[in-house]
Amino acid sequence: MELFSHSYFMNMALKEAEKAYEENEVPVGCIIVSDNKIIGKGYNLTERLNDVTAHAEMQAITAAANYLGAKYLNECTMYVTLEPCVMCAGAIFWSQLGTLVYGASDEKRGFSKAGNLLHPKTEVIKGIMADEAGMLMKNFFLKLR
Amino acid sequence: MELFSHSYFMNMALKEAEKAYEENEVPVGCIIVSDNKIIGKGYNLTERLNDVTAHAEMQAITAAANYLGAKYLNECTMYVTLEPCVMCAGAIFWSQLGTLVYGASDEKRGFSKAGNLLHPKTEVIKGIMADEAGMLMKNFFLKLR
Repeated sequence: MELFSHSYFMNMALKEAEKAYEENEVPVGCIIVSDNKIIGKGYNLTERLNDVTAHAEMQAITAAANYLGAKYLNECTMYVTLEPCVMCAGAIFWSQLGTLVYGASDEKRGFSKAGNLLHPKTEVIKGIMADEAGMLMKNFFLKLR
Repeated sequence: MELFSHSYFMNMALKEAEKAYEENEVPVGCIIVSDNKIIGKGYNLTERLNDVTAHAEMQAITAAANYLGAKYLNECTMYVTLEPCVMCAGAIFWSQLGTLVYGASDEKRGFSKAGNLLHPKTEVIKGIMADEAGMLMKNFFLKLR
């Protein structure tokens, strides 16, 4: 795997998703990168925190902005294993994120079903390691049954 | 003002919005009510916290779920002075909020521009004390100039 490639960073987001999986949370992981450095990360904690807002992306945005001491993430790239939901897309909009890279599409709750919710300046790249991210989700829901 | 009326509770949300105004934050306030009891509240803190996710509604949802020890707010009513944005509407969707009551419409960033983002079970009542909420916003942006 090439250093600092999209797959390289998505693999790190997958490691976050695996932590969620281990904790019986819907396995979504996210990292935010600036100048090839991770400045924010998170994994889904909605069950543990009893909080629907505790998605991986929300935590990563808060952490990255805290690191930067600034609200806007124009120069940053977010890697998230699953297509963000409407809530997270709204947060990504406000953050003016530079680039959004996601893995598997979310046919049911993905933001793209709701139209164009992102900032016009945000570049979107999808399908990076989608099979791995999708398999993790699939295994999670199999485990639940 | 009638006890426990929509205006009664919206007036409390306005008091939250006024705190934001005093702190030079975009003045939006929110409370969440269950059985006529306030179980969550918040006002916009995006500047102080350097965090685009720190909207009044997000904080109130987190607080209410924490109070209840449960993620879902089916039996709750949210009072928010301004129409929620897409991010907050997404969070409201996930919370399965019972009733959303808002004051002023947000022509630019209100969720209703983006289509139907809320949970089908969430009742929406708008325009409660809209003039007061709108005036607070207007005064804030006049102050900024």
